[in-house]
Amino acid sequence: MRTVDIIRKKRDGGELSREELAHVIEGYTKKQVPDYQVSSFLMAVYFAGLSETEVADLTDVIMRSGVVVDLSAIPGVKVDKHSTGGVGDKTSLIVAPVVAAAGVHVPMISGRGLGHTGGTLDKLESIPGFNTRLTTEQFREGLSSVGAALVGQTDELAPADRALYALRDATGTVESIPLIAASIMSKKMVEGIDALVLDVKTGSGAFMKKQTDARRLAQAMVSIGRRMNKRVLALITDMDQPLGNAVGNSLEVMEAINTLRNQGPPDLTELSVELSARMLMLADSAKSYDQAREQCTTLLENGQALEKFKQLVANQGGDAGVVDAFEKLPTSSAEYTVASPRGGFVSRIQAEDIGTAAMLLGAGRETVDSKIDHGVGIVLERKVGERVESGDTLCTLYYNSDEHLEEATQMVEDSFRIAAAAPEAKPLIYEIIQ
Amino acid sequence: MRTVDIIRKKRDGGELSREELAHVIEGYTKKQVPDYQVSSFLMAVYFAGLSETEVADLTDVIMRSGVVVDLSAIPGVKVDKHSTGGVGDKTSLIVAPVVAAAGVHVPMISGRGLGHTGGTLDKLESIPGFNTRLTTEQFREGLSSVGAALVGQTDELAPADRALYALRDATGTVESIPLIAASIMSKKMVEGIDALVLDVKTGSGAFMKKQTDARRLAQAMVSIGRRMNKRVLALITDMDQPLGNAVGNSLEVMEAINTLRNQGPPDLTELSVELSARMLMLADSAKSYDQAREQCTTLLENGQALEKFKQLVANQGGDAGVVDAFEKLPTSSAEYTVASPRGGFVSRIQAEDIGTAAMLLGAGRETVDSKIDHGVGIVLERKVGERVESGDTLCTLYYNSDEHLEEATQMVEDSFRIAAAAPEAKPLIYEIIQ
Repeated sequence: MRTVDIIRKKRDGGELSREELAHVIEGYTKKQVPDYQVSSFLMAVYFAGLSETEVADLTDVIMRSGVVVDLSAIPGVKVDKHSTGGVGDKTSLIVAPVVAAAGVHVPMISGRGLGHTGGTLDKLESIPGFNTRLTTEQFREGLSSVGAALVGQTDELAPADRALYALRDATGTVESIPLIAASIMSKKMVEGIDALVLDVKTGSGAFMKKQTDARRLAQAMVSIGRRMNKRVLALITDMDQPLGNAVGNSLEVMEAINTLRNQGPPDLTELSVELSARMLMLADSAKSYDQAREQCTTLLENGQALEKFKQLVANQGGDAGVVDAFEKLPTSSAEYTVASPRGGFVSRIQAEDIGTAAMLLGAGRETVDSKIDHGVGIVLERKVGERVESGDTLCTLYYNSDEHLEEATQMVEDSFRIAAAAPEAKPLIYEIIQ
Repeated sequence: MRTVDIIRKKRDGGELSREELAHVIEGYTKKQVPDYQVSSFLMAVYFAGLSETEVADLTDVIMRSGVVVDLSAIPGVKVDKHSTGGVGDKTSLIVAPVVAAAGVHVPMISGRGLGHTGGTLDKLESIPGFNTRLTTEQFREGLSSVGAALVGQTDELAPADRALYALRDATGTVESIPLIAASIMSKKMVEGIDALVLDVKTGSGAFMKKQTDARRLAQAMVSIGRRMNKRVLALITDMDQPLGNAVGNSLEVMEAINTLRNQGPPDLTELSVELSARMLMLADSAKSYDQAREQCTTLLENGQALEKFKQLVANQGGDAGVVDAFEKLPTSSAEYTVASPRGGFVSRIQAEDIGTAAMLLGAGRETVDSKIDHGVGIVLERKVGERVESGDTLCTLYYNSDEHLEEATQMVEDSFRIAAAAPEAKPLIYEIIQ
């Protein structure tokens, strides 16, 4: 089997066998196939695409490039949730304790933020002592005792995915739906889960700006799940404005805690309940959709979800006392208020710019090596559709260094649009793909 | 300027500036841009194409990656001929002395054979003593004194082309018309020529199997020439059957000499006269097309072209005595005759298979490192359209080792088709692109 023949076959629109895909991917991770052939292959995939069978095979090959976590000793359906990334998306911090409080195990391997998007690990690490680097044994133990464990990817999980992503990033082959789908799904499938709810974001703050692309990605991932005998469902949800009000790590932890106390922003609460309910249904833990939603809402109202969050934090070495004492979380030393230049209705809050502005303040990473400041960020006082008077606060920037403050402020101001009339209401959840 | 942004721009159908193309190509030859980015770029070019401006810029960048021969000290228009490669194509050996005998300088840098196609250098090197490795000074001297010099590419000429070709060969990006056009033209433009006649082959033995592809390649190369202020004209000619009768190095030299004696096969003579006449016209050395053709025919008839060939050979250290004593050329020790299985008309001689069979006998190279046997090859006794009786010789295989004889014989037999009726006559020259 010659690598160049596989590249040419894909280039000319042929369908590759599992063996041919494995030849390229395994060969690459074993340094038997040179990177210049792999990058050419990836660009051919960018243009020629992959069939459903090919994407599933590719996912499987990437998944098996490292260790696959075995959770068979833990009884019941293990279910995870994955979001394609956005601004202010702290649903993982809410969904994991809600679903675990309902008695369903949630093994969750999360990532770090990059560019305008935040990462669950960074948010969790703003809680003093919280350890996201568990051994597999600790991960299993957390699942058994608490019902949920939230950790970061390790070098031994799907190493081919990291190698491929680094190459794609340097060779203009990131924006390929089958490659994105295989990357996400390979990382999720190593968790030893039985079911997965995908939250595919669309809009200005999402990776998929267009709903049609979000749909294609969701369909590709659901198809992979089906072919790998996993229960997978995808929601396509709005990321045109930030989710909730807080953007920035400790600010988002506070908002997540408030939401677990049933005092969160309506959009964040709604999406968290919807995602949790879908997870319970995939786990056969609810009789109906309505019952699943009701159960999740009850767990927010009766304090059981918050209690589960405290257990989760404590189990991973974190200070669960933050729940009742936000001052224990990292904070900023200064704040800057952005006021509305006129009265009217908020008609747009460009999510990517809010995310980038938060990154500039130190909440996010410009490159993977950037250091972040857990205490800084942006809190929106108004969301799209709300009425404002001239001079009302639109949002507040929390910062520790004013190095990029002006740039961030300008970006935040530009991200808001104030119109005379109320904008047409947009749904939070666009579609369900299953 | 980030390489990945250039790749993405091309991938998304953008038009690259000369600076962007130079960033990739010069960066690659200086080892500042890694091969995995260049191969991804090349695959993006394969799919997204290049505009006429981009192809000309790319050619110029590749050409300037090394030394450009300066022939300005030699008066008059310097004109070359280049063929895209075929089976039995020995026109360079005829055209160079004919045009030089007409008083026009022919600086010719040629290549070696690979796969089923032959190379001018290999043919010339079957003449004892012939040296194709001249210094630039010797090359200029040969042009001044004889009017023509035929040499091989050196490391200092267009090094980026060799580096790119090796990468394309390994990454499935050879079959890209703009990349082929830029590769050919960059190698020709370093010769210091003013004008160029291109012989773009089409048919079973050609790189471009389809006439539409040959036309696109011809148009791309003519456009490059125009943008580089060179006079360039392309003929699209038939390579569905081998050109002339002889395939194999010393066999082709003999046939070329016979043609220079005006005793060559009709198709080879016709194409040689046509190419030579076109060269004279581009050099403003003839008043009309008819006069140019007449002049070339006269030079074959009166022995002046053959005399020029002898001068050319002697000037490059070769034994010009081969012209009158073919036994001085390498020969084979054995021959095998393929007879027609029945009477009828030759309706097809699959050129690629004849070329591959000759390669198997040792006349060509399977890889660039293969050694070749100058004495072996195949001589066709019948060409397409000719009548045969059952048992008549179709062709003869000349060989020194019977290692691949059976395979070669089978291939040659299969390459001939004998039909009851005469096939429709096909033109030798399909189109002129200028």
